[in-house]
Amino acid sequence: MIDSGTSSQSIADIVAATTSGQISCREWAQSRLDRISSVEAHIGAWAHLDPQLVLDQADRLDGSPAHGPLHGITVGVKDIIDTQDLPTEFGSEIYRGHRPRRDAASVALTRRAGGVIVGKTVTTEFANVTPGKTANPFDPSRSPGGSSSGSAAAVASGMVDIAIGTQTTGSTTRPASFCGVVGYRPTFGQLSTSGVMQVSGSVDTIGILGRCVEDIAVYRDVLLGVPTKTLPLVSPPRVGFARTNRWLEIDETTRSLLDDLADRLAANSASVGEVPWSPSMEGLEEAHRWITGFEMTRNLSWEIDNHWDALSDGLRDGRLRDGESCSEELYFEMRARAANSRHELPSLFADIDVIVAPAAIGEATPLDDPVPHPWLYRPWTLLHVPVVTLPILKGPNGLPVGVQLIGRHGEDRFLLAVANWLEKTLGYPSSYTTG
Amino acid sequence: MIDSGTSSQSIADIVAATTSGQISCREWAQSRLDRISSVEAHIGAWAHLDPQLVLDQADRLDGSPAHGPLHGITVGVKDIIDTQDLPTEFGSEIYRGHRPRRDAASVALTRRAGGVIVGKTVTTEFANVTPGKTANPFDPSRSPGGSSSGSAAAVASGMVDIAIGTQTTGSTTRPASFCGVVGYRPTFGQLSTSGVMQVSGSVDTIGILGRCVEDIAVYRDVLLGVPTKTLPLVSPPRVGFARTNRWLEIDETTRSLLDDLADRLAANSASVGEVPWSPSMEGLEEAHRWITGFEMTRNLSWEIDNHWDALSDGLRDGRLRDGESCSEELYFEMRARAANSRHELPSLFADIDVIVAPAAIGEATPLDDPVPHPWLYRPWTLLHVPVVTLPILKGPNGLPVGVQLIGRHGEDRFLLAVANWLEKTLGYPSSYTTG
Repeated sequence: MIDSGTSSQSIADIVAATTSGQISCREWAQSRLDRISSVEAHIGAWAHLDPQLVLDQADRLDGSPAHGPLHGITVGVKDIIDTQDLPTEFGSEIYRGHRPRRDAASVALTRRAGGVIVGKTVTTEFANVTPGKTANPFDPSRSPGGSSSGSAAAVASGMVDIAIGTQTTGSTTRPASFCGVVGYRPTFGQLSTSGVMQVSGSVDTIGILGRCVEDIAVYRDVLLGVPTKTLPLVSPPRVGFARTNRWLEIDETTRSLLDDLADRLAANSASVGEVPWSPSMEGLEEAHRWITGFEMTRNLSWEIDNHWDALSDGLRDGRLRDGESCSEELYFEMRARAANSRHELPSLFADIDVIVAPAAIGEATPLDDPVPHPWLYRPWTLLHVPVVTLPILKGPNGLPVGVQLIGRHGEDRFLLAVANWLEKTLGYPSSYTTG
Repeated sequence: MIDSGTSSQSIADIVAATTSGQISCREWAQSRLDRISSVEAHIGAWAHLDPQLVLDQADRLDGSPAHGPLHGITVGVKDIIDTQDLPTEFGSEIYRGHRPRRDAASVALTRRAGGVIVGKTVTTEFANVTPGKTANPFDPSRSPGGSSSGSAAAVASGMVDIAIGTQTTGSTTRPASFCGVVGYRPTFGQLSTSGVMQVSGSVDTIGILGRCVEDIAVYRDVLLGVPTKTLPLVSPPRVGFARTNRWLEIDETTRSLLDDLADRLAANSASVGEVPWSPSMEGLEEAHRWITGFEMTRNLSWEIDNHWDALSDGLRDGRLRDGESCSEELYFEMRARAANSRHELPSLFADIDVIVAPAAIGEATPLDDPVPHPWLYRPWTLLHVPVVTLPILKGPNGLPVGVQLIGRHGEDRFLLAVANWLEKTLGYPSSYTTG
């Protein structure tokens, strides 16, 4: 029904317009509010939205001589991230009406850069498995992916220019794939999680969902609190495909699209090979499951003891049951396994610049299944490496299927440069359409 | 004026009494409230205290059939840790009256185990350098040490049985030394920081301040969310003294006390040697300074942009100035330095069980100087290793001087067992006294 978000204007274009006065921040914000008025009823990306607050922020920017790198850019913020002027409810009725005292670091840094916080985007309950109200922008019978459902859907449908999510398993990567936007999960520990609900401190990061790699790169610098840098140009990269132990569980059409992708990369002078998948890498899936279960169960102690009946069955019977059944010994064994595997990363990347893996087994799943196939994300998330998801495949129903580009630990800017090369060289499908 | 906290009853003793009915939780809580009434005016350990809330918690425990491992134990909570029923003000007027919606994980786990939250203990402003109202329990002209000032002073003066603090530099270790209590900084990432104000995500941990090592061990299991285990008995350990590049800045009397300590350890069959201090270890001090400055400056973005005038000069001219002046390149260079040094840890511990280093250069500093000599703590904190501080030295004025016992990464229980051996074998000074 709607155009692909990837066809819209870049942050650089918009900021050039707002900074030069070609369009005011208020006009741009109003255009996004208009867009919201026309599509939100079908998508349900927003947990909290106050149009007057949006326009007030835009007016303040228009009245200020400062022109930050996000001057007038409209931003969605996942509803597990604290905002001082809007509720933060974690996708749970337990927190109905909860108003934090301060902005999360990521929100404050966004405002400082001239970003306009449009509202709070729908999250699954506590960024876990139980869905919110959001539908896939391309097909209302399908899921937007979780847990950063509203952030991905809002960007995909052009309601905002960019959005913040988070990732504990695949909560940025998966919705980026399902909604056909670019996703970025930074190297663990690089971007502040202050003011973000802690799910699993060993792996939690924030994430960014945007329309193109350059937008992600601009916003990353903002969230890191450093001056904007342009991405370096890179040569055709050395790419290693990770056809893991789970390869045959990927949809056949997706596997075939990935084989095509390998051919297209090679045709564009990239070096294309395979990443060997060792038993220790296979063991990361189990390690991620126990570590995050153990930690989330501790982090939700207050909710468990005071609001057990208000927690969903999906949470109680899933991660919380895992966490309760995980012994101290198993938890520390799994942490040691993760640490050992991280030591293998340099050899995994010895001859390649980037690993490619599917970001979903195929197109978006049904509405009631927002977080399928966590095994696609667990190894990379637990390894703490950066991941950029590009929606460069088109599935059999015309819906997006994303590809994970996995980079070296700490080399996020280089990974973004490689992703930019892929985006510019291969392009996106002309449009995703359905329904 | 007061007895050393180390002479009081252990958690095991108190829980045996409350569980058997020898004393009710209410009676024990009331006895601590009485103690608070008699000494708080001179110490100022409490930011928030509501006696009725304390008694209500105790009554609920007395009326419940459940007997957790902290049944009736009185606990102080540093005021940068969220509590649902008491304000959380971070030692800053910006947060006057701030009431979080939920308990931090550590607080919820404490309550689940039967602990009674007595109140919120004084912290320096945002756990940084600017002192709160707390005085040293042994000498009102001296500092309790920071930033976990109130937690250490409350335990030292017998107002509570144990307390939670945090550590970003030496915020648990230092006040443990100044106040003559046992301090514990866990391996980074082991105990949940959910609901704790984030200062520097790369190094922040919670900490525990208690009267003896066994108390710390019991409470650690509670905060890890696992069943209580008794500490294993260990043989006389292999001890390596870290006489670092800063050795000559340690007070001469303290150095001589440390030499005595080495002799006493050797006389008790411990193997005693030296830890070589490599240039890469020397470089950790600078790395810690830049990393924590960079991160704290991002984490306080909201306060900087909205409440600059309400921040202290000490914060603005110290860590925030560091953070503003630290480039992205320097920040990542320092992170890489830290990661490299962590790889050297196994060789540092190749032939020893525990490293010994002073926890302060000498006795407590003047009141207006709560966080002196950060270089004593920076390497260990940045290395992510666990540290137990034992107040086993007595300075020239009869005041406590602590010793840091530094353990292998992730081997917290073994470190606690070694600390227990030292405590039991060497004992504490009979009493710390002053004017």
